[in-house]
Amino acid sequence: MDDSTDDDSYHPRKHYAYDRQVSSSRWRTSREYIRGPGPETHTTESAQDGQDPPAGVYSYGYFSGSGNDPQVQGHFVPEIQKYNPYVIFKGEQLPVPIWELPEEKVQDFHDRYFIAKDKSRVEARKTLNRLLEGNINTIERGHGYKFNIPKYTDNMEFNEEVKVSLAKAGKTISRSFCNANQREVASRTGYTIDLIERTLGAGLNISKRTVLYTNKDLFGDQSKSDQAINDICALTNIRRGSLGIIAAEKGIVVGNIFLELTNGKSISCSIGVQIPHRLDQIKDVCVEIGSRNIEYILVVEKHTMLNYLLEMDYHTNNNCIILTGCGMPTLQTRDFLRFLKQRTGLPVFGLCDPDPEGISILATYARGSCNSAYDNFNISVPSICWVGLSSSDMIKLNLSETNYSRLSREDKTMLKNLWQDDLSDVWKRRIEEMISFDKKASFEAIHSLGFDYFATNLLPDMINKVREGYVQVQEKKEPQDTEASED
Amino acid sequence: MDDSTDDDSYHPRKHYAYDRQVSSSRWRTSREYIRGPGPETHTTESAQDGQDPPAGVYSYGYFSGSGNDPQVQGHFVPEIQKYNPYVIFKGEQLPVPIWELPEEKVQDFHDRYFIAKDKSRVEARKTLNRLLEGNINTIERGHGYKFNIPKYTDNMEFNEEVKVSLAKAGKTISRSFCNANQREVASRTGYTIDLIERTLGAGLNISKRTVLYTNKDLFGDQSKSDQAINDICALTNIRRGSLGIIAAEKGIVVGNIFLELTNGKSISCSIGVQIPHRLDQIKDVCVEIGSRNIEYILVVEKHTMLNYLLEMDYHTNNNCIILTGCGMPTLQTRDFLRFLKQRTGLPVFGLCDPDPEGISILATYARGSCNSAYDNFNISVPSICWVGLSSSDMIKLNLSETNYSRLSREDKTMLKNLWQDDLSDVWKRRIEEMISFDKKASFEAIHSLGFDYFATNLLPDMINKVREGYVQVQEKKEPQDTEASED
Repeated sequence: MDDSTDDDSYHPRKHYAYDRQVSSSRWRTSREYIRGPGPETHTTESAQDGQDPPAGVYSYGYFSGSGNDPQVQGHFVPEIQKYNPYVIFKGEQLPVPIWELPEEKVQDFHDRYFIAKDKSRVEARKTLNRLLEGNINTIERGHGYKFNIPKYTDNMEFNEEVKVSLAKAGKTISRSFCNANQREVASRTGYTIDLIERTLGAGLNISKRTVLYTNKDLFGDQSKSDQAINDICALTNIRRGSLGIIAAEKGIVVGNIFLELTNGKSISCSIGVQIPHRLDQIKDVCVEIGSRNIEYILVVEKHTMLNYLLEMDYHTNNNCIILTGCGMPTLQTRDFLRFLKQRTGLPVFGLCDPDPEGISILATYARGSCNSAYDNFNISVPSICWVGLSSSDMIKLNLSETNYSRLSREDKTMLKNLWQDDLSDVWKRRIEEMISFDKKASFEAIHSLGFDYFATNLLPDMINKVREGYVQVQEKKEPQDTEASED
Repeated sequence: MDDSTDDDSYHPRKHYAYDRQVSSSRWRTSREYIRGPGPETHTTESAQDGQDPPAGVYSYGYFSGSGNDPQVQGHFVPEIQKYNPYVIFKGEQLPVPIWELPEEKVQDFHDRYFIAKDKSRVEARKTLNRLLEGNINTIERGHGYKFNIPKYTDNMEFNEEVKVSLAKAGKTISRSFCNANQREVASRTGYTIDLIERTLGAGLNISKRTVLYTNKDLFGDQSKSDQAINDICALTNIRRGSLGIIAAEKGIVVGNIFLELTNGKSISCSIGVQIPHRLDQIKDVCVEIGSRNIEYILVVEKHTMLNYLLEMDYHTNNNCIILTGCGMPTLQTRDFLRFLKQRTGLPVFGLCDPDPEGISILATYARGSCNSAYDNFNISVPSICWVGLSSSDMIKLNLSETNYSRLSREDKTMLKNLWQDDLSDVWKRRIEEMISFDKKASFEAIHSLGFDYFATNLLPDMINKVREGYVQVQEKKEPQDTEASED
């Protein structure tokens, strides 16, 4: 079935009596002629110019399902295992979720690839102490102060089976104090091992930013302290969280759910709560009493996107959980998404601005990043479907030029690098479109069609289209500056 | 009593066996020699070089009071009405909190100053419709499309009685479509009135950012759409929240408290929750069962500050609520602080980086801003005490130069503008110090003294000093580049 959906039902222009004649654009509020499932019939509040609503009048209504009807007790509706080409990976073979892999298969992955593990604080401290002692021996044997660190960056491979980018095991890089070029990085590594060992001993967690400032003379800037932390995760084969290292920033989650914590507290997410960085603090995730079934998780790129949708009560009207990492997600936010997906089985949809950065953020949730390659296996969610916004979504909306800015050289380089990867045909075609469209925008540009149009109409339609997964997989094309093709 | 606290008890260097001899700085974890009230005696985990802890060994301990002991039920400990010179205003006469002013006194303020009021959505819509109809009359009478807007910016006065900057009533500015220079601003104002009227009609709230994007051709950038919104608040004498306009960003609150919402839900703040923008959604603020008395509200400048303190369980160990506006606070965050102060009576302490921007953010919480002058009376908290960080705090810590950067020209201008205001002597002296110190830093620089030193030692000490309010008011000095004087 052809992906293009240019029949009458979708074209936004026909959904709105949108009248540019008068000096400022006047349009009826989106409530009057909205298409979409809803309990109430449409309300014609004021047909100013007597024009009848277009054929196929729509029903629409707002209701806040949450907390109104204590008899209602919703649950999580797991994803039906059907292939949906809006996912990032090529081909139609669905990956088995990592947490459902049999034990021996997981072990095989751990042998072939370099994958960090969770450890208790006591074990982590022992490993660090053994490392320090091991160094004293190499010094005593005259080999000096030296680390052999598994090579996790520039040593990646996209694994077709689990559809995640993983660091191949076997190669190492040396950090030797005796080598003049490696002396600084070796002392940063040694210093950080000692710092982490003491943090674990004090029963604390510290942020990456705090690590930098404990010795700014030594590190200079955060890229160096981050590198030392990642090296130690690689060296010890222990995940960053188990070493007591966290991110200073936190993602936000909204939904008619609550998190049951191990300390007995329950945290309602209905007005937006910070994601706890220690997932072992969360005993369970539950649907709030009085809320209907939850049907999907919506990952959004920006904090302002989450707050706009929260304001429109989107999570209640569309029975979903909304999560944001407030830009590029931290390891904790990515791990929380994997945790939510594993616990609830819900499908995951991704929403970003129609720009290169938005695509790269969704790709990180789906298949991981280079810097934390040692953790990609544990926290990636390759089944995330890129709902939008794509250039073709924007082209259809016919927005004014002031909403757009040209792609910069860096933008185009980022798009072409993304395109080189093993991507699904929908992802590749959308990247090609953006290169030829040569413009980017922010999702708020859509508010020029009505401040609630995006939340009440466009986004639900886009998600329904993706959920039905009826797109035809077309042949792959090279990224010349071809005319924007219909999505 | 002299403010300088250079006796043995305070100097950080003596608190730490801090030993620079070895290549990387080694110091014992802060837990071993910590001064401060705590239930356990100190633990000497490892006196590596046999050195006895300094005289006056300290007791220290961690305990998580929250949720451990269901019999414990803390409450909010109201501020004792004693003058504390760390507040922003001059002189020693404490202002009566605005919400305790008698009715006729409030009316008097409303007559002398321009102060916006809360209104129901129905009333707000009527006012806007009257405004539009009023305009049709002026057009019919040949006077064209015209607004007379109360002059709220550059028309401010610091009121000694309530210690807040207020916009004087009486003056107006005209926005006339017939005047070529005012045509654009008049059409933006007209367009925004119509947009707000429809938002109210749809029962929705929209963010300032959404207003911009509903017609980017007309506004161009957010400063213009914000100006139109503020003009309409002035024109209608209605607060922005009552017009359904909110900020896209939100502050975060942490504490062993929960917010009881009008929809029956209770929102625990123990891991950090977004501040609801509609305070009428909050029925009450309560201390969590099992938590001890809450003693103060700590307003922090940055999100990373809040997360660092959350990580150190500062709110539990020091019985406080922590609030951040993630930088310059929105009206909602400032209003939430006023709401918390009014409901709990707790003292409010402000913590910021030792830089001009941090000082200006705390000043905004205390006495308001120009752009929203019409709302300062409703949401300012002049009794906020500036705990730190000041330049003299940093000078005492003897941190390495890499943690500092020079004040820019804009920084110095900002400091001198702040200094011109009616400020207390402590604020003035600290600003003078920063000008002569000519450097700024981020609070994380203090982590070089131990990653938990700031949360477990320096900050509690600073707050105790402010709470005891024992500073000597010294004479005022002009801001030449004088030698940094002791705080």
